[in-house]
Amino acid sequence: MARSDLEICFSPAIFEAHADRDAVVVVIDILRATSSICTAFANGVKEIIPVATVEEAREMKGRGYLLAAERDGFVLDFADFGNSPYNFTVEKVRGMTVAYSTTNGTGIMKRAAECHDVVIGSYLNFSALCSWLEHQERKVVIVCAGWKTRFSLEDAVCAGAMAERLLLGGRFSTMCDSVHAATDLWKTAKDDLMGYIDKSAQRSRLRDKGLDDCLQYCLTFDVTEIIPVLRNGRLVSL
Amino acid sequence: MARSDLEICFSPAIFEAHADRDAVVVVIDILRATSSICTAFANGVKEIIPVATVEEAREMKGRGYLLAAERDGFVLDFADFGNSPYNFTVEKVRGMTVAYSTTNGTGIMKRAAECHDVVIGSYLNFSALCSWLEHQERKVVIVCAGWKTRFSLEDAVCAGAMAERLLLGGRFSTMCDSVHAATDLWKTAKDDLMGYIDKSAQRSRLRDKGLDDCLQYCLTFDVTEIIPVLRNGRLVSL
Repeated sequence: MARSDLEICFSPAIFEAHADRDAVVVVIDILRATSSICTAFANGVKEIIPVATVEEAREMKGRGYLLAAERDGFVLDFADFGNSPYNFTVEKVRGMTVAYSTTNGTGIMKRAAECHDVVIGSYLNFSALCSWLEHQERKVVIVCAGWKTRFSLEDAVCAGAMAERLLLGGRFSTMCDSVHAATDLWKTAKDDLMGYIDKSAQRSRLRDKGLDDCLQYCLTFDVTEIIPVLRNGRLVSL
Repeated sequence: MARSDLEICFSPAIFEAHADRDAVVVVIDILRATSSICTAFANGVKEIIPVATVEEAREMKGRGYLLAAERDGFVLDFADFGNSPYNFTVEKVRGMTVAYSTTNGTGIMKRAAECHDVVIGSYLNFSALCSWLEHQERKVVIVCAGWKTRFSLEDAVCAGAMAERLLLGGRFSTMCDSVHAATDLWKTAKDDLMGYIDKSAQRSRLRDKGLDDCLQYCLTFDVTEIIPVLRNGRLVSL
């Protein structure tokens, strides 16, 4: 069996160089958007509508949707709640459709929509996602949401963990420098992931705002087997 | 003394997030543009005019300039020579003005021109450049030219080497995730730099085209003390 290509894209600003209509795109924004989305589905949300701009978010709220929305870690004042995975409780989201807008993660989901599939990745659904990717027999592009187009360490390390798992499985090969870099960063980080992530800028941003209570949770492997996938502009469970 | 900020930008596509009019920008494209530029100045070139497009390159040739120009490793057919540092010999370039256009390196030099200074970095002028940067008391942004906006391993590792040197010197501090990642990649690579770079995509491209004779040379520290700097659209020796 021919091996499929594996690539990592370190920033939404580089996405066009990696984009491929036949590829599966995995969006990673572990602190906190994609961890929150995985949590929402684990807690029974019906669907999540990614919304790129603040204006669209306001419009969705006006149309009666439950709205989760933040910018730079702050909840938008007209939103129902913000971007912590702890907000997406069973009580709040079970059976609901949630409109969701974040600083970095949701914009790239919409831009990647022309690719074959867009799925949501985090440590929380790590093994289920890797296993599913191995059975697609397609090129996979893991996109790190980053921070306002900047490279972000925590997403790169998680992408490296996924890439290592996928390459070890033998169904993928790579000629992508970002994959080599990310897997080496993962190897450096994995024995003390929390300690390694401590130097990331996003870690500082969350700490400064008192939003880092979810950090250990967001670095936990395999809390759920759910794989959120984009279908007609909405995230649903595969 | 207040420490100056140090940042690394992994791709020209992310440059706007790092750009700062008061910063010194270091452009790195070690295989092969910035290694060739350092070599040209070591061999007595008077000035180098970075040219972004093939059309501009053709126009410069028509105006009588000595032209070094390549795309994807191939010499443009109307150019005098291509992008190997071995082309920029004393016999060819001493006292000359050379127009120079490459796939990745020269475009970002022109885009960074609005910053306080744009200088050219490589292993070849490593220590002289780091020493000069330490005396500027300014924010420094090291920009990796990459490959058609993609992250490239060899440039990231060299940027990490520079960042490690600058941070150890005590005059810089950083909150930039790319700096943390690049210095960790450098630590992984430095004991066998040639072996580490062997997995990079650019290494394969050069090997496939028989252009890898200059590789060991491009990974050599401190061949020259010259620091090429952009002044009014032209690179000259500081």
